[in-house]
Amino acid sequence: MFKLIILLKKKTGLTNEQFATYCLKTHAPLAKKMPGLRKYVVNVVMPPPNRAPDYNGVVELWFDSVDDMKKAFSSAEGRVTQKDTETFAANLTTMYTDEHSIM
Amino acid sequence: MFKLIILLKKKTGLTNEQFATYCLKTHAPLAKKMPGLRKYVVNVVMPPPNRAPDYNGVVELWFDSVDDMKKAFSSAEGRVTQKDTETFAANLTTMYTDEHSIM
Repeated sequence: MFKLIILLKKKTGLTNEQFATYCLKTHAPLAKKMPGLRKYVVNVVMPPPNRAPDYNGVVELWFDSVDDMKKAFSSAEGRVTQKDTETFAANLTTMYTDEHSIM
Repeated sequence: MFKLIILLKKKTGLTNEQFATYCLKTHAPLAKKMPGLRKYVVNVVMPPPNRAPDYNGVVELWFDSVDDMKKAFSSAEGRVTQKDTETFAANLTTMYTDEHSIM
């Protein structure tokens, strides 16, 4: 299975709590409607006590193939999801990965 | 459960294949010996065709608590694991996260 990992930075002006709540309660329900999505995990970063974190969220999306991922993001649901990302995220770093479960 | 996510950049001079092979075949067997480690996943980043990737690997490590993670890294096995990281990784970005399985 193919796994897309996305590193998210929150928009300026949002608190960590606002970012996490929006991501989990508003964005995730939109994203999970994307056709072909097999598994979906949102990791909320706990901010370090004395500095800004490099990222505020790490999202993992599994598809059967890269082609299926491309179809998902170009679907109506995928376009809504991507548009919604602009509401809470200032920056996205996307990575195509090959997942190895060591244990 | 607590999840540590580590973003890895490979050392200069290593090919993507050398990085992945070392990470999976040499480093992972050391890391999985750490006491208290509950689950361990290594994601190898597929390099984009026309630029250097932001990161070459994304590692996920689950522990029962932050305290258990700290104990794991300060154990003999943890110290060996951290020392070995210097062999293949130039830079590490670590994040403490709260994992939400959406689907």
